[in-house]
Formats: sequence, structure tokens, C-alpha cells
Amino acid sequence: MERTVTVGSLIALYRAEGIEPVLNLGDVVISGWVRTNRPSGQLAFLELHDGTHFLSLQLVYTKENQGFDMMSRLKTGAAIVAHGTLRASPSDKQPFELAVKSIELVGDVAEDYPLQKKRASFEFLREQAYLRPRANTFQAVYRVRSVLAHAIHSFFQERGFVYVHTPIITGNDAEGAGQLFRVATEGKDPFTDFFGKEAHLTVSGQLHGEAFALAFKDIYTFGPTFRAEHSNTPRHASEFWMIEPEMAFCDLKGDMEIIEASLKHAIKTVLEKCPDEIAFFDKFIAQGLKEKLEHVLNSPFRHMTYTEAIAALEKAVKEGVSFENKDIFWGMDLQSEHERYLCEKIALGPLFLTDYPKEIKAFYMKENPDGKTVAAVDLLVPGEGELVGGSQREDNPEKLKAKMGSLKDMDWYWNLRRYGGCPHAGFGIGFDRLLMYVTGMQNIRDVQLFPRTSNALKY
Amino acid sequence: MERTVTVGSLIALYRAEGIEPVLNLGDVVISGWVRTNRPSGQLAFLELHDGTHFLSLQLVYTKENQGFDMMSRLKTGAAIVAHGTLRASPSDKQPFELAVKSIELVGDVAEDYPLQKKRASFEFLREQAYLRPRANTFQAVYRVRSVLAHAIHSFFQERGFVYVHTPIITGNDAEGAGQLFRVATEGKDPFTDFFGKEAHLTVSGQLHGEAFALAFKDIYTFGPTFRAEHSNTPRHASEFWMIEPEMAFCDLKGDMEIIEASLKHAIKTVLEKCPDEIAFFDKFIAQGLKEKLEHVLNSPFRHMTYTEAIAALEKAVKEGVSFENKDIFWGMDLQSEHERYLCEKIALGPLFLTDYPKEIKAFYMKENPDGKTVAAVDLLVPGEGELVGGSQREDNPEKLKAKMGSLKDMDWYWNLRRYGGCPHAGFGIGFDRLLMYVTGMQNIRDVQLFPRTSNALKY
Repeated sequence: MERTVTVGSLIALYRAEGIEPVLNLGDVVISGWVRTNRPSGQLAFLELHDGTHFLSLQLVYTKENQGFDMMSRLKTGAAIVAHGTLRASPSDKQPFELAVKSIELVGDVAEDYPLQKKRASFEFLREQAYLRPRANTFQAVYRVRSVLAHAIHSFFQERGFVYVHTPIITGNDAEGAGQLFRVATEGKDPFTDFFGKEAHLTVSGQLHGEAFALAFKDIYTFGPTFRAEHSNTPRHASEFWMIEPEMAFCDLKGDMEIIEASLKHAIKTVLEKCPDEIAFFDKFIAQGLKEKLEHVLNSPFRHMTYTEAIAALEKAVKEGVSFENKDIFWGMDLQSEHERYLCEKIALGPLFLTDYPKEIKAFYMKENPDGKTVAAVDLLVPGEGELVGGSQREDNPEKLKAKMGSLKDMDWYWNLRRYGGCPHAGFGIGFDRLLMYVTGMQNIRDVQLFPRTSNALKY
Repeated sequence: MERTVTVGSLIALYRAEGIEPVLNLGDVVISGWVRTNRPSGQLAFLELHDGTHFLSLQLVYTKENQGFDMMSRLKTGAAIVAHGTLRASPSDKQPFELAVKSIELVGDVAEDYPLQKKRASFEFLREQAYLRPRANTFQAVYRVRSVLAHAIHSFFQERGFVYVHTPIITGNDAEGAGQLFRVATEGKDPFTDFFGKEAHLTVSGQLHGEAFALAFKDIYTFGPTFRAEHSNTPRHASEFWMIEPEMAFCDLKGDMEIIEASLKHAIKTVLEKCPDEIAFFDKFIAQGLKEKLEHVLNSPFRHMTYTEAIAALEKAVKEGVSFENKDIFWGMDLQSEHERYLCEKIALGPLFLTDYPKEIKAFYMKENPDGKTVAAVDLLVPGEGELVGGSQREDNPEKLKAKMGSLKDMDWYWNLRRYGGCPHAGFGIGFDRLLMYVTGMQNIRDVQLFPRTSNALKY
């Protein structure tokens, strides 16, 4: 009786219990795709990848095998089913290998297969977005993506946060966070026919999330958000996933505690569950990545107010630090270079920057007693800049109304303050940017599956 | 030193370790919202709900309390912070209650608060979508929604499935599953300006998911999908979440095994984690719900081919069963009444219906050797009809090409069969419909947060 195995199940067994149980499996069958196939004289080595683990399994077959000729013609990318027994490998590249009894070709590869070359550039692979998950780097990226997403779900679920699906199509444009996509149908009045009013794709689930926090205390969203911006940068996409937790009876201090704890949990989980992927990134994508992530885990995040940051930047300019923008003044919007200086040169690690001037922050943020700043926070991280943005929300109905101006369709949001409102706070993590930070990948197009940017909608 | 507690933490402690540890907590502080407040003579009872559990905590205060007058004026919906000690309750409605030392009013309730009445109709509450999560039924619905979502994630993650975020904005309309929403921007050519081509909201992540299954073996999506249909029924919405697993080296039999296992895991988790919510639904929403769910858990799902189903329906008509549509013939599309008859009267439980005529199923489904049917499956459940739809996918390039017709922008999907294709299969679960099934709620508008249907885009 053959046992069906996967590379993932074999490596898990080996790492948990050593090689003996692997060698005792008897006859096994495994299916997957050919990575490389090197027949040479009597002995031939075929690297089988099945997608269940970052690593591959070495298959060994010989002239003695019936079907040796067919086997030796198997091409990179071909789908096969292999039968055999596991044995200790003489090479120290892997602990065990499969001694092949037979191989069945399930799906051949056409001559024009684009992934023939061993090392294709990221730019080339972007054009092959439907095939690139087969490439080493993207096997690692997308597996970490999955593990990271689940780590975030588990963190919040274990703490009793309620996962809410805030709407994607929305009638509000109140957050004012950039350009909106419009939703339309066919017909005479494509923009209003269906819903009876203009509809857009959401830029944030926060406002709807607040309504649920005021019923469930702690909630979080995890879903797609959209920006119709023509920003052609390595950090911007038109469609990206966000996590937006919101906590009732919570102030900015509590907000920062959850930000720090959730990020540390997420990073810890990835380090534990994806050691091979992180080692790969550390070696080939971003040297020092593992140390950076471990440093984040082991140090408390530092805190600084915006006002302190401005003073530090003014001092830096005086001391000759050459920012592109040296015009530092209280009230300015910090540029990425300033944010990076603050966390990389001063905090030497993740830094919470708090209490920004109210003029440069959103209307829903709670005004501080000084009347000039709001209880906002950005988390800045080395190499990246802003990773998380959050705030305590304005819970005073009069102050909120003054800042909202016309309530338009937003009276419900205002009413939340009149119907048992309370101090509440929340934050947003751009999931794709977090994944860039955790993997060291430098372009958001290379951590998303099928990235959408202006003039890019292949697939 | 006061300890901060929640209703959820207290009930968890009580159920795990009994009442003693609860009574030994000493001084505690708890925040939440007033559900009811009944001052009567010397003794007054205030029901505090904090959203962390389906149940509430009874607060008891007396004339002896400083601030008794303020406390007795607290209104339904007000946000409060209460201090006191926990003691055994003399009533058998709850095991413990809070003897109040003081209460702080954090957020009052305006006179026009719409949730004054104890029992508001679902229709009324739909109009108050931002407040209804505070009502009992919706506390239960949305908590089960969150638990159910996480149960699904956990099931697939524990089995090594990779979670993939397939795109929301898409250039393909190949699935042809109903009407599409268009994505536009402002400007001269709103439908093509941004992406350089027409863009739509996705109806399914399956096709993109297949590309990832052929790299990772087992993957699943969990995200929003859209239909621009004016179906004004209790089961249709324009925006809803779907789970779409896809498995390489898997046939229809393997597909059905995963469907059955994943649904049973999801239902089991909800029964274990939400006993109070399920008891509530069983009592007030759908009598017999708990028994129904336990029955599903404990019985193997039955199997029947479409051809067998037609024979069974013909027999039923002969025997006098009065369907609205009695014109039963091989090749017809089954109506909901037929589907329900098959699972409710014949299978007496969940039923896999397989091998449908190819003419009534999608182009990507694998043709069976008979040349007439495809390896498709629908899971039918009592009371609901179709809950899951799946199939093995056509992996023969020539057969697929013949059915796809013009490849348009879909050559990549076809290429998946030419570049190491293999037998693969998958399915789709409508998450909102699954939630209806698990809670017994009868209208999709009452299990979604802010439902979007034609002419409905409030909030």
C-alpha cells in the first residue's frame, strides 16, 4: 500500500522526529512539478517541487529504471507523479531523497514556456504574473503572505476582536483619502442607475468599523481598499489590503499597545513558521533581514511627539545632515526622508510619532487639550518609513461637527457620538507594505498577486 | 488595585474554573453600554452589555450608593464605566453580579436614539444598519460571522493551503457569471482612462486561483465578489464574500472530501465557540437549528448523480408530488424546489449532486468520458438548496480551447494547461449564505454588515 506524501509533510516529519520515521514510510507516491532534471550517465537527479514547501525533493533514477528515457526527457515545469521509496541522501544538500520506481508524466510543457531560465528578472516575471508563483522568490513571498495574513487574524481573534467585513462599494467619500474609483453599470445613467446614487470603491473601512466597535468593543477589518491615483512608485498600488482594528473605551496609549503587540506577534509567527523563506530573503533579497526582524521583536518601540521630532530635525539640519527638504518648521508634513532619519538615526528602530498638528491630519482625529494637535500616531520603521497610522477618534459631537462641515450622508457617523459614544481609537496597517517590510522586497508589485496600477490590468 | 474586566473574560473564567475565581477578583472596573436600567425603591438593576460576549452583566446599586440619582437616570444605550466587586447572584438568571461602588457616565444618549424599543423588527433595524449590531440578534449574527470566518481560515491553514488575495478589479469577464459592475474614474473616458482598458469588479477569484494552485498545490481565496443584478430576493446581494479553494492533483472525489470536511469543521467550531448564540437562534429564529447542525456534523454527506436525480424527480411527479415546475427532463436546470426535495425528502440531509449536463454548466468544467456530462458538483442542504458549487477543471488544452471560443485576454488561463497542467479541482462557498444556514437567518440583508442591493446604498 503506497502512502501519498508531500514535500511539506516529509520535511515537517523530519524536523519534528528526525530521519528514521521518514525512511520508514515504505512505498510512497508524490506529485508535483519538475524544477530541474539532470540525467548524466547511469545516475540522474530530478528536483521535484510541489508547492507545499519552499524546499524541493530530490528524485534519483538510474538506467536500471524502466522508462529511463522518458524520465530523462522530462522538462522543467512538467507535472509528474512519482513512485518510490525514501532513503538517506549521500549529499549534505538534503537529508533524504526519493529512489524512483516509476514516474508518470501528467502534464507536459510546451516549448514556449516562459520560465525556462533559472534566473529571470523581477521585471520579466511581473509580465508573467500567472506563472511567477512557481519561481523561488515568489514561492517565498506568497507563502509568507499567507502565513502573515493568518497570524494577524489569529492575533485579533485570540484577543476576542470581532472580524467585520466592511463594505467595498460605498456611498461615502468622507474620508477624503485620495482619489476614488467609481462603480458603474451599463445603461443610460451608468453612475446612478444601479444604486440610485453615486457609488465608489472604499478607501478605508474605518468609519464603518467605528460603528461596530461601539457595539462589540474590539473589532478589526481585513479587506481590500482602493486608490485611483496615478502614483507610479514602488510603494503605491490602486488596490491593496488593509487591516483596520478599532477599540472602544481605548485611548491613544492603548492604541499603540495593540499596534506594537500585533506587529510583534505577526513577525514572530513568520520567523517561526517560515524559517526557509526568511533565510532565502536574508541571503538573496535583503541582507540582515532576519537580524532586523529579531531586533524589532526584542526591543520596545520608542515614542516621540511630533513637536520633539521637529526639534530633532532642526538640530540635525544645524549639524549638517543633508535632507533634500531642509525647510523644517512646526506644522510641516514630514517627508519620507525625515521619517526615516528619525527611526533609523535617532530611535534606531521602530518609532511611534504622536500628536501631530491638527491641520495636517484627518477630521476624525481627537483634538488634544492644547487645541493645536490631535491624538494621532504614525509608526515609523527603518528602511520603510510609515508602516501604521492610527489615532484616537474625536468623540465630542460638537467638535466633530465643526470639523465635518456639512454632514451630507454622514449624519450616521456623527450620531455615533450622540448615542452612547465613548473614547475610542484605531489604526490601519497596509498589509502589502507590511509584507514588503517582513520580506525585504522592494516593490509592491512583487508582493501582490496581480498588482493593479495605472495602465496595468493584465490578467 | 482595580482589575479591568470584560463580560467575556468573566464568563470564560466562570465556565472554565467555576465561580470562586470570579468572586476572588476583588475590586474591578468594567466599561460598556446600558441595556436596561430598572431602579425600584431601594435596589436597582442595570444590565451592562460590553460587546465582548452575547450575555450581559447585571449591575446592582442601592440608595446607599453615592450618585444613586444619576445612576437611576442612566438611559438605554449610554456608555458607562462601572466600579465594584463581583458577588454570587441570588437570582438563577446569572451566576454572579456586580455590586456597584460607583458609575461614571462616559457618553450619554440623545432623546432620538432609535433603539429604545425592546423588540424592533428586522425591517426597521435594516434602516439603522450602523446601530443594529447593538441589538441582541445582530450581536449573535456578527459574532458568529467572525467565528465562522476564522474557522474557515484555520481549517485551510492547518492543512497547508496558501491563502491568496485574488484581484478585485479585473480585466477578465470570462466567467460570465451574471452582470458585472464597471470600474471608472472621473475624466473624459471614465471607463478606460485609468487602466487603458475596461475594468470590472470580480465575480469570482477562481481563474486566478487556479494559477496559484498550479504553483502551490492547495490554495484558497476568501474575499469579496460582486454581481450587478437587480435580483430583489432574500438570498441575493450585489456584494458578498466567497471562499474559493483550489487543489492541484485533485479530482472531483477529492474535491467533495474537502467540501465536506471544511463545512463540518466550520459548523463544529461555531457550535463549540458560540453556544449562547446558537441557543438564541434555536429559540427565537429557527427552531431545531442546533439539532440540524449536529445532524450535519454526525452524518456522512450523501452522493447522487444528476441523472439519478432526474429519475428520482420523475418518480416523485408520478407519485403526485406537486412541484410548481413538473416538467422534469434530462438536461433541465434544477429549480430550488427540486433541489430542496432531493436533500430534504430523499437524502434527509446534505447531498452532493454530481455530473451535470455540460450544456448547463460553465466552460471550465472537465468533460466526463461519456461526452455528455461534466465533473461538477453542487452541495444541496435542507432548507437552503445549493450551498456550495464546485468542479474538476478541464485540463485538456484542446477541449478547453473549443469551449472558450475566442481566447481574448484569456490566453494565460489556457496556457495553464500547456505549462505543466494537471488534474485540479475546486469549489466556491458563498460565505453569507453559509452564515444564513448556520444561524437560521432568512435574509441575506440581515447577515451582512451594510448590505448592497439595487437601490440600496445607505451608509
